[in-house]
Amino acid sequence: MKLANVDGRAVLLTAEDKGIDVAKASGGLFGLGSVYRNWSEFQVWAEKLTAEPDVAFTRAQLGPPSPEPRQIVAIGLNYDAHAAESGFAAPDGLPPVFTKFVSALTGPDAEVVLPPGGNVDWEVELVAVVGRTAHRVDESEAWDRLAGVTIGQDLSERVSQLAGPAPQFSLGKSFPNFAPVGPWLVTPDELADRDDLALSCAIDGETVQDGRTRELIFPVAKLISALSQTITLYPGDLVFTGTPSGVGVGRTPQRFLRAGQELVSRIEGLGEMRQTFVAEPEA
Amino acid sequence: MKLANVDGRAVLLTAEDKGIDVAKASGGLFGLGSVYRNWSEFQVWAEKLTAEPDVAFTRAQLGPPSPEPRQIVAIGLNYDAHAAESGFAAPDGLPPVFTKFVSALTGPDAEVVLPPGGNVDWEVELVAVVGRTAHRVDESEAWDRLAGVTIGQDLSERVSQLAGPAPQFSLGKSFPNFAPVGPWLVTPDELADRDDLALSCAIDGETVQDGRTRELIFPVAKLISALSQTITLYPGDLVFTGTPSGVGVGRTPQRFLRAGQELVSRIEGLGEMRQTFVAEPEA
Repeated sequence: MKLANVDGRAVLLTAEDKGIDVAKASGGLFGLGSVYRNWSEFQVWAEKLTAEPDVAFTRAQLGPPSPEPRQIVAIGLNYDAHAAESGFAAPDGLPPVFTKFVSALTGPDAEVVLPPGGNVDWEVELVAVVGRTAHRVDESEAWDRLAGVTIGQDLSERVSQLAGPAPQFSLGKSFPNFAPVGPWLVTPDELADRDDLALSCAIDGETVQDGRTRELIFPVAKLISALSQTITLYPGDLVFTGTPSGVGVGRTPQRFLRAGQELVSRIEGLGEMRQTFVAEPEA
Repeated sequence: MKLANVDGRAVLLTAEDKGIDVAKASGGLFGLGSVYRNWSEFQVWAEKLTAEPDVAFTRAQLGPPSPEPRQIVAIGLNYDAHAAESGFAAPDGLPPVFTKFVSALTGPDAEVVLPPGGNVDWEVELVAVVGRTAHRVDESEAWDRLAGVTIGQDLSERVSQLAGPAPQFSLGKSFPNFAPVGPWLVTPDELADRDDLALSCAIDGETVQDGRTRELIFPVAKLISALSQTITLYPGDLVFTGTPSGVGVGRTPQRFLRAGQELVSRIEGLGEMRQTFVAEPEA
């Protein structure tokens, strides 16, 4: 199934622009605020659902599929070629873990203000959405703890990220709207191979990243298992799994997003997101 | 005022072991889940309160004063002598910002399991609790955006923190119960000088850290203002402000916490926290 956040309401999609209002169809039993906390019950209910679509929507109405995660976990350097282009050694163990602060979270088609003096870079990523609490789970159990997957852009302002005595991963990647997620949650059963999805992004039609999730150093199940050895993952949490090569900071010459450009990110089976970039308005 | 989390209830202290149940006294208007989101209204209400204390409690009943922060922001290297002992240059601009994942959050007097093979270190810190949304606030407005301050321990497992191609700040500091906070929130008006508080911690009675918050490279107001240039701080959010010198990893020989030891952390005017450390139980 595909589950969208339409103006704050949970909608089960029947097409790319319509679906079933979950709160209405369930008599208030499930809603966007509770669906992840009750994922098992929701799945059982949704499988039996026979309601007709009652909501039509436009892309502008879409918010992030899980709008109030208790934790956003983000992973750096999880593809060999991206670690190399970033000037880091590929990690031996778990790649660097940071957060994108939740104030940066937004829907799939946001407008993003370029911070003055910054160099804003693109990083298309598969995002896992947690559906069941996970602490110290084995790899074999990990996919079962997820509600599904969606697309994320780990937008990154490289000047602040790379300043200072230690990399400023979390802050440099958390400007407003720097964590667009969507367009909707897709459950793994909808995917031909949940561990091998093509992911790419393009600026004004020119492809700049083009990879496959089978190239992940820590694939989804291994990553969820590894994270869960330290932290507890909660229903609704987001895990940005890392980006393939092709980012702007790794190019010669370096290249960054400019006002007026459009960034389109696609993952096989999950749809697409598109951000437009604008200059900071004069004060 | 001093506001505690007693078994999930908000309690205004009248002594160190008793106080007024906020939900009862306000007829359900305020509770621990809503007090930070309505901080201005709560302050006005609390100032006029004339109720008698109706709750007696023990230390074991205390939870973190803000138990469900949307964001936990943590700061590294915010005291010169600590940056030096850690082998980092003191930052020119904003010190490194990371998160302690919320699954590590606990009350003031927790028992902490030492991860097998790890080196667990102490870091006493002043923790600011946000009371009003803050985005792009000036230094002069910053204290007014805070509900108050409390004590935190930024417990840090150094093996995982320092492994890998980039420092693993967020994960190495987020094992279960690695973010004890408390014993209660104290509003700044209770403090003789909110910008100069003695903070220290001791292991089994031996003082290992002993500093003053006036030594912060980015003091509270400057830090809140700087963070708010990038992210939005929400009511209930926690900001761990950094630790002074004296941690175990900076000593010769290095020294870490061992099972059976007790760590007591104190900040002037805020009270104390005490954690005991235990070995991981055999599987």
